[in-house]
Amino acid sequence: MKFLDEDFLLRSELSRRLYHGYAEGLPIFDYHTHIPVRDIAEDRKYRNIAEILVDTPVARRLMRMGGAPEVCVAGRGSAEERFRQFARILPDAAGSLAYVWVHRVLRRCFDCDLVLSPETADEIWRHCNGKLVQPTYTTKQILARGGMECVITSDDEAGDLGHHRRIQKEGAPFTVLPAMHFGAVMAVEDYDWGNYIAYQLGQAADVEITTMADVRTAIAHQMDAFGAVGCVTADLPLAELHYVPAEEPELDDIIGRIVTGGGEATRADGDAFRTAILRFVGKECALRGWVMQIHYGIVRGTNKRMLSRYGQDAAFDCLGGAEGGRDFAELLNALAVDESLPRLLATSMNPAGQNVLGSVLGSFRRQGSVNLQQGFAWMDMHARRSLSAQLESFASLGILGRILAPASESHTPVSWPRHAFYRRILCDFLAGLVEEGLYPADEEALGRIVRNICYENVKAFFQPVKK
Amino acid sequence: MKFLDEDFLLRSELSRRLYHGYAEGLPIFDYHTHIPVRDIAEDRKYRNIAEILVDTPVARRLMRMGGAPEVCVAGRGSAEERFRQFARILPDAAGSLAYVWVHRVLRRCFDCDLVLSPETADEIWRHCNGKLVQPTYTTKQILARGGMECVITSDDEAGDLGHHRRIQKEGAPFTVLPAMHFGAVMAVEDYDWGNYIAYQLGQAADVEITTMADVRTAIAHQMDAFGAVGCVTADLPLAELHYVPAEEPELDDIIGRIVTGGGEATRADGDAFRTAILRFVGKECALRGWVMQIHYGIVRGTNKRMLSRYGQDAAFDCLGGAEGGRDFAELLNALAVDESLPRLLATSMNPAGQNVLGSVLGSFRRQGSVNLQQGFAWMDMHARRSLSAQLESFASLGILGRILAPASESHTPVSWPRHAFYRRILCDFLAGLVEEGLYPADEEALGRIVRNICYENVKAFFQPVKK
Amino acid sequence: MKFLDEDFLLRSELSRRLYHGYAEGLPIFDYHTHIPVRDIAEDRKYRNIAEILVDTPVARRLMRMGGAPEVCVAGRGSAEERFRQFARILPDAAGSLAYVWVHRVLRRCFDCDLVLSPETADEIWRHCNGKLVQPTYTTKQILARGGMECVITSDDEAGDLGHHRRIQKEGAPFTVLPAMHFGAVMAVEDYDWGNYIAYQLGQAADVEITTMADVRTAIAHQMDAFGAVGCVTADLPLAELHYVPAEEPELDDIIGRIVTGGGEATRADGDAFRTAILRFVGKECALRGWVMQIHYGIVRGTNKRMLSRYGQDAAFDCLGGAEGGRDFAELLNALAVDESLPRLLATSMNPAGQNVLGSVLGSFRRQGSVNLQQGFAWMDMHARRSLSAQLESFASLGILGRILAPASESHTPVSWPRHAFYRRILCDFLAGLVEEGLYPADEEALGRIVRNICYENVKAFFQPVKK
Repeated sequence: MKFLDEDFLLRSELSRRLYHGYAEGLPIFDYHTHIPVRDIAEDRKYRNIAEILVDTPVARRLMRMGGAPEVCVAGRGSAEERFRQFARILPDAAGSLAYVWVHRVLRRCFDCDLVLSPETADEIWRHCNGKLVQPTYTTKQILARGGMECVITSDDEAGDLGHHRRIQKEGAPFTVLPAMHFGAVMAVEDYDWGNYIAYQLGQAADVEITTMADVRTAIAHQMDAFGAVGCVTADLPLAELHYVPAEEPELDDIIGRIVTGGGEATRADGDAFRTAILRFVGKECALRGWVMQIHYGIVRGTNKRMLSRYGQDAAFDCLGGAEGGRDFAELLNALAVDESLPRLLATSMNPAGQNVLGSVLGSFRRQGSVNLQQGFAWMDMHARRSLSAQLESFASLGILGRILAPASESHTPVSWPRHAFYRRILCDFLAGLVEEGLYPADEEALGRIVRNICYENVKAFFQPVKK
Repeated sequence: MKFLDEDFLLRSELSRRLYHGYAEGLPIFDYHTHIPVRDIAEDRKYRNIAEILVDTPVARRLMRMGGAPEVCVAGRGSAEERFRQFARILPDAAGSLAYVWVHRVLRRCFDCDLVLSPETADEIWRHCNGKLVQPTYTTKQILARGGMECVITSDDEAGDLGHHRRIQKEGAPFTVLPAMHFGAVMAVEDYDWGNYIAYQLGQAADVEITTMADVRTAIAHQMDAFGAVGCVTADLPLAELHYVPAEEPELDDIIGRIVTGGGEATRADGDAFRTAILRFVGKECALRGWVMQIHYGIVRGTNKRMLSRYGQDAAFDCLGGAEGGRDFAELLNALAVDESLPRLLATSMNPAGQNVLGSVLGSFRRQGSVNLQQGFAWMDMHARRSLSAQLESFASLGILGRILAPASESHTPVSWPRHAFYRRILCDFLAGLVEEGLYPADEEALGRIVRNICYENVKAFFQPVKK
Repeated sequence: MKFLDEDFLLRSELSRRLYHGYAEGLPIFDYHTHIPVRDIAEDRKYRNIAEILVDTPVARRLMRMGGAPEVCVAGRGSAEERFRQFARILPDAAGSLAYVWVHRVLRRCFDCDLVLSPETADEIWRHCNGKLVQPTYTTKQILARGGMECVITSDDEAGDLGHHRRIQKEGAPFTVLPAMHFGAVMAVEDYDWGNYIAYQLGQAADVEITTMADVRTAIAHQMDAFGAVGCVTADLPLAELHYVPAEEPELDDIIGRIVTGGGEATRADGDAFRTAILRFVGKECALRGWVMQIHYGIVRGTNKRMLSRYGQDAAFDCLGGAEGGRDFAELLNALAVDESLPRLLATSMNPAGQNVLGSVLGSFRRQGSVNLQQGFAWMDMHARRSLSAQLESFASLGILGRILAPASESHTPVSWPRHAFYRRILCDFLAGLVEEGLYPADEEALGRIVRNICYENVKAFFQPVKK
């Protein structure tokens, strides 16, 4: 097999037929991205290849580990210097997602077959920047060329939706929808959380927030606003999933002490507040027919000095614990008892917690369709064998043919080679089952499974379904 | 390799020779099943294929995840409808144990080579039901045809042993023994635990239970009764293994508050009581020459609504945590100090805890023979690569040639194709060692290892050994 | 592939070229061993093969699990009997490190191609003992023949450095350096910890220890002494990594109660004291340009009875938990805030914690070079697929080309076949990337990665670097 040729990762004749015959041509429904909606709305043009390849969390982490100056890592300094630092480090990153992703982007998006290294950096820099000045290299056109059918961006729940309205007015060759992201609401222990709740959330929703009920009113208001531009999903990130239900006066006291009083929150405050939010948002999602997304096991901004200097997105996250399933089951129980279990996409970012989560979800399916989905662990998702292992775990604890292919989690429009990467691994995994005699060599049945995982299941899952 | 043909999972000439030459023909000593003893005693006939294939936890979980109505999942509704729902979902379950197990059962037990799908469901339904009316399709005969030498059932420790006595009186073409299951005793936090202890355990043993000493007396009485019908093993399931030794008055207080007083138990009560039981039962097992089985990391009945509607066995379990080895080591220390470390089969159901457990067991072997065994994690055991990974972990932290092959954990008599599945993976694993140059191509030595793991070690381990 | 022939574990032409062309001939920089420095200083001769093969933790664990009498396991009883017990058990240990290691030692160090079993034990015993009486079978010469360039031993931080001074005076065909091992200092809860601090550490450093400041003074004094014989690394083992910062009076109180007052320590005392030590030693390492090594997740001496009888090194350890990254991140934050983050080699002994740790380290790199390294999990490191999995995890969360090959952790001079084992797996892993099309077939680039991981990175990392 040649480096990243048409058949890379496809180890058998059957896997090649499944990929090229069924997976390759499917449209992409990228349900979880961090592509800035403003870039799409303004149809941003990139000034150079560093902006599109290097200023991304995947590349940043690599550069930091490779000893690049932190200003380069954080996207400052000259673009050419950032690219050079990256080119210096990349050849050592054998076996990483970055290595594969970068070279597939060069090939597929920039018609460039070179292998990036200090020796080729100049030529690649010139070649790609030459492409980027062409009128076909705008954000929308790059995404469209990749076969994008729908892109879901990640939007702060108190944020403004003007960019989304502009896209809907001006049109795009694919659908763009927001996801309502609860990161800031959930970060109770952050020093400016009180201000965020009072001023950003409160003002966005035009609610004076002095009680927990006010928080709920504001969130419901924002869900209405998001829903009005087509939003069908809420995204709730957690460092750890602790289910700690509290009585309403206790929750009001937390709001009073911190939002009104400017006090500091303990972790116990945070757990109680987050539990209340999970229950409320879960119920609202059920009512509105939205998908609730819960990601736990990522501690954000672990490096406090760098965080204060470079901000939340500069790749300072780490994995949290891999708790047992008890707390997660209690949350689902609380929602189920109220008849308000929404469709759910849950992910333990710590791979050691994925089996636990899968075992919980299998106890809570609702009738009629696949409502509770498990996501791929992000940090580990990009390794070839880890991805196979997750497929096996899903096949073992769930139903393989019903799962959702991973989303790109991408920060730039050159995200689509990642989908091809996942699709190849899926096809190779299925072909492997046939080779070991564990599934019939029924190409039609296998092709249907491929199509469903890569496209149909995803599309169906993110359709709004009124209760 | 063709679908589930004679050589499935056997990827090399050597693996095929090991399987067909050494493993395939060995009798089965199925030391951990949930086959209802009543079915064996009454030599139950199944009215249809749904009763034998679909009304099992493995199939239930699959049906729930596939969106089948919960009444079908829980074994109600018409049998034909349950089977149809299952046939609708199964083709999507590529890579699952259920997929392989069902088709091996069809082939081996029903001479049916069809692949189950909505299209073939009718024909398979008729074909298999036609077999089931034949006089050779009784529970005993199905088990006997599979090569069963011994079946150990799972029996509530306060339960009646009449079925076992009947089997021993009427005979069976294999040995049937009870395992004394402590699930109900250990479920301290359950709302009806106090009643269970007072009325079921107390009355079974004819002891009025008002102190911890009474609990011990009752258990010892039941162990005598179980021993009288040949029982050689106690099975103690735990959600989490917390070693919390308590003084006797504290234990008496728990009994007083909950059993006598009807109060509710805290998790701390539960941990203290369970620790006392583990110590007592461990000591009793040592005295009686029994095997103590400890399974931790399964939280039972997580879905409380469904649990109240469909009961404990309707597949609502999830994985618990994967704690460090400290607590487990403290339990073993406590038993060792009293010279009462029994033969032990311990399992962390959470695969992430298996390495930890393996590392503990390696510090506590007794002289003379293999006394402390590690079991395969149940939830994950059925995936092809997970099973290989567990074999590698056992080989790395222990001695591969001394382990026990997995038991079937089956709820129906068509359990034996599972043993063949495990045996194939073992043979393929061993052949892989030779192919990589890590073990000599000494077929006799390898065949001996196969025979020991699949049969001799198991048989020897479950012989009663007086101290 | 034949048993342990020249190409074992090398499954492709490319992997064989990488191993034989780049890895095989590299010198060994064994940065973490437990080879007794006295054995090197006195150039110990071994009286028999049991002393060099069987009296090691790897073999001991195997013997205990195999039911050998504990006196044999612990290295007592006759040497011939120990060897016989080992030979009896080894054939069952297919898939273990011990199996491969023993046979590679026989081949490479003793020119013996036999496979050890009860049948061959006599012949091997005679053959090897015959070699051991030859003048070329001294500790130094065995190590030198293996291509050793540097051996770092493990030395108690209060211990005497006379052996190291003797080696430096008398010379050796390789460099020998101490690592300053903080095991005894960190074992706060041990019953004789107070005495250790007062008498061993205090007297070694000539400091009367009554406060935390005195502890720091004594440690700094010892670091000076170690530095004087070339030491460049401190090794801090922990059962669990709990970051619990305490005020100075609280730390003084712990010293007062336990060291001066002879009281017993709680786990909270231990966590507070250990946190203070981690911060102090981290800072000192940064100042001195040393490498700080942190290993967590091993609980030592779990079997208390055996521990009291056979001591700390008789293989009674187990894995601890796999905590989330929060505590580790807090430690790194505390060091970073003081501008005293040292070069660091951190390892979660529990493999389930390795992804977590990798994700933390990626948030804390300093500029200029690779300062924070992740080590291989010890207990699991020896399994073929686990080692591949760790390589994949490192490649995914870090930069593969910058990592350090594992050290031998060996207790005897026949450690070097282990390095060859790791190097083979690395070469096979890299060749696998090429075969799947994930890296160019650029043998020069791959050879450079091999050379760096196996040698250059290690050597550079353990050079003292003044701040």
